[in-house]
Amino acid sequence: MTIAIYPGSFDPITNGHIDILQRAAKLFDHVIIAVLANSSKKTFLSFEERLNLIKDSIKEIPNVEVDKFEGLTVDYARKKKAKALIRGLRAVSDFEYEMQMAQMNKNLYPELETIFLVPSAEYSFLSSSIIKEVASFKGDISKFVPKEVNKYLLQLNQ
Amino acid sequence: MTIAIYPGSFDPITNGHIDILQRAAKLFDHVIIAVLANSSKKTFLSFEERLNLIKDSIKEIPNVEVDKFEGLTVDYARKKKAKALIRGLRAVSDFEYEMQMAQMNKNLYPELETIFLVPSAEYSFLSSSIIKEVASFKGDISKFVPKEVNKYLLQLNQ
Amino acid sequence: MTIAIYPGSFDPITNGHIDILQRAAKLFDHVIIAVLANSSKKTFLSFEERLNLIKDSIKEIPNVEVDKFEGLTVDYARKKKAKALIRGLRAVSDFEYEMQMAQMNKNLYPELETIFLVPSAEYSFLSSSIIKEVASFKGDISKFVPKEVNKYLLQLNQ
Amino acid sequence: MTIAIYPGSFDPITNGHIDILQRAAKLFDHVIIAVLANSSKKTFLSFEERLNLIKDSIKEIPNVEVDKFEGLTVDYARKKKAKALIRGLRAVSDFEYEMQMAQMNKNLYPELETIFLVPSAEYSFLSSSIIKEVASFKGDISKFVPKEVNKYLLQLNQ
Amino acid sequence: MTIAIYPGSFDPITNGHIDILQRAAKLFDHVIIAVLANSSKKTFLSFEERLNLIKDSIKEIPNVEVDKFEGLTVDYARKKKAKALIRGLRAVSDFEYEMQMAQMNKNLYPELETIFLVPSAEYSFLSSSIIKEVASFKGDISKFVPKEVNKYLLQLNQ
Amino acid sequence: MTIAIYPGSFDPITNGHIDILQRAAKLFDHVIIAVLANSSKKTFLSFEERLNLIKDSIKEIPNVEVDKFEGLTVDYARKKKAKALIRGLRAVSDFEYEMQMAQMNKNLYPELETIFLVPSAEYSFLSSSIIKEVASFKGDISKFVPKEVNKYLLQLNQ
Repeated sequence: MTIAIYPGSFDPITNGHIDILQRAAKLFDHVIIAVLANSSKKTFLSFEERLNLIKDSIKEIPNVEVDKFEGLTVDYARKKKAKALIRGLRAVSDFEYEMQMAQMNKNLYPELETIFLVPSAEYSFLSSSIIKEVASFKGDISKFVPKEVNKYLLQLNQ
Repeated sequence: MTIAIYPGSFDPITNGHIDILQRAAKLFDHVIIAVLANSSKKTFLSFEERLNLIKDSIKEIPNVEVDKFEGLTVDYARKKKAKALIRGLRAVSDFEYEMQMAQMNKNLYPELETIFLVPSAEYSFLSSSIIKEVASFKGDISKFVPKEVNKYLLQLNQ
Repeated sequence: MTIAIYPGSFDPITNGHIDILQRAAKLFDHVIIAVLANSSKKTFLSFEERLNLIKDSIKEIPNVEVDKFEGLTVDYARKKKAKALIRGLRAVSDFEYEMQMAQMNKNLYPELETIFLVPSAEYSFLSSSIIKEVASFKGDISKFVPKEVNKYLLQLNQ
Repeated sequence: MTIAIYPGSFDPITNGHIDILQRAAKLFDHVIIAVLANSSKKTFLSFEERLNLIKDSIKEIPNVEVDKFEGLTVDYARKKKAKALIRGLRAVSDFEYEMQMAQMNKNLYPELETIFLVPSAEYSFLSSSIIKEVASFKGDISKFVPKEVNKYLLQLNQ
Repeated sequence: MTIAIYPGSFDPITNGHIDILQRAAKLFDHVIIAVLANSSKKTFLSFEERLNLIKDSIKEIPNVEVDKFEGLTVDYARKKKAKALIRGLRAVSDFEYEMQMAQMNKNLYPELETIFLVPSAEYSFLSSSIIKEVASFKGDISKFVPKEVNKYLLQLNQ
Repeated sequence: MTIAIYPGSFDPITNGHIDILQRAAKLFDHVIIAVLANSSKKTFLSFEERLNLIKDSIKEIPNVEVDKFEGLTVDYARKKKAKALIRGLRAVSDFEYEMQMAQMNKNLYPELETIFLVPSAEYSFLSSSIIKEVASFKGDISKFVPKEVNKYLLQLNQ
């Protein structure tokens, strides 16, 4: 069985993430969304909020599971016996940081392969940070996030 | 069984290609190197030369096969029931053309997922065209190509 | 009256070009699609074929006109009293060549301003050359070109 | 009448901004410099300082006005009946964030068109942040900012 | 005698920095590693820690010296009569910021030439920030930093 | 004595090349402009024309010499005992090809260091190919090339 992990902050999860996840779920037997618990970056939503929104958003993808992780991604992958680390690639600026991380992870744990998937063109300009910015000014983000996320952010803004 | 194709001109196959291939072979059940037969680009080596050099170079990777293809990559993938199209990502300039092709292929055949793998840092600046250029002036390329390719190109140069 | 020119080869015109044109037509009083007649690049379609396909594709945009030009874009712009030169921006690789041309044109004719417009995300990965490649292998391009262009290319392929 | 807005922090306004503004003022009937009042980013100069320096710097461009805005740029543009949102494009790194914002704004308010203008080559490497860094160490920035800005920053540094 | 300076934070010094330094030391008569003392960025290691780790790491390169600097790099270069400012170039994202700084420095002090050197491919994906991130989770960084740095960071982590 | 080579096609030499050359001439004892004689690329000017225009353009830089070379740049550098290979860096697209060549050359001849210099901002968008394009349509290129080159190209166009 080939296990893949898809690590990130998911602050919040967007339709771009869901798109990548659905692609990964077709290629691998089991996919774990690994939500980073101890990031040095301050998040907009709490860890529990992010986890719950992911759970609500992925109910219909059978071979996907959500989990928490702390520390190095490669250590988590080793524990889970994952062979693939999934990343979404949108822009050139993503690309370079991702290459850096992929090379470092390859050195730390050669058994794990980083694979990059490309979201649909309509999501290629989407990021969690732009969603947060627009939502904070009550802009309409319903086309870009799962309906559960949209509903939750609308409540926060009231 | 998950089948992946790795299409290209391989003019000639380099250690960077072999590196990508070995990574793909660990992730998927079966990998087909699909050598483009009717490219509009003029090639340095003939189709048969390229095919033979690949065969000689991959003997030790068990779940890899070489094949010829013509026409659209997606049509070939459909015929082979491939779920993944493998591409190596080195530089930003690769990235944009690859994104274009990935989006187009997704439109032409949504069942096929393009996945990008990253070669080892030592091969991240390697390309078939730089190999051809250096070899044509009798520069030493032995670190960058399989030994069968090196031997063949040395003979051509005599 | 503010006149804008939109120069190019349009070999063939795509939905991405039409998208840029519609945006320009809302911003400026009159837009001229200026088709390059004497490019050093060999084209897939003849000048007349390209011109006719454009005419058929833009019938519904009232303030747009098609014209032929030869020589330097700035000389043509001067003759037409155009104040704006329209360019579509998709990718980083476009960006650099376009910046080079914009700086050169500014030196040659400071009265002409180059302005860049961004196509819809769904067309951001589209180019004439990818259309030609896919069409030449009888791939379905109907989503990416005006219906007149699709029909014409299908006839060519028979 | 075609109205364009040129939004930003202008912390402080540079000769690169003035250059873009002069180009926009030639293309559109009326241009509004819209200074963001509630940015989450901490600014070097206060809102009033930034506004006053802009006013002093643009006195000679007749069809340009300065204004304050808060919230989403698209909401401000709608209120002002602006058809064009002006952005300066210098580097590839600008380009990607700008593309993201342009796509998002197009979704939020399709009537507003983002247009990118290119500053003169001599300003193509200029940014407000580099000006602040050099000025804070008493480096000479007189070539890169309006004389009013230079004078003001020199006073601050005494 | 041609003097070159190599300014930076070196937080901490990596094998990538050492690689660049060794190249510079072959090209110029004397190279000064200039460690920024008053950066606005919060550093991981104190100024003294960084300085000591550099001293321990470069003992074997004869024509290299470590020094402290504050304020503008160009003012420091002038004081030291340096003709060259050394920078390492790894990625496209480095490139643009570096070009900005190079152009600004050329304006502030035309006698100083910025020169870019390229590290070995194996270090081309290395940065101080990725080292800090991996080290903070006790990942093995021994391949990427001088042995003195590795030892020191291991002690910190205990 | 530190010898540097500055290889290229110089088809034709531009003010951007002269700018780079002047910078190199200040840093190194002796600089050789090495004009490629056997490029696979078809050139606009003959080898003799290019050589003569360079000679005419550099008369005032004392420590610079022009020479012809064939084959691999590293072999030529070895013969000339050059320690530095000079390259001008303008755009991101230059950057990647240049990195590839620098890494390959480092493998072929580790004693030779590739160093990148940055032209003045006003020449950062300049290339020989844009000069050729503009000159072929009788556009004014006098600001961008040495006066000898301008005069020669004007004669060709008559």
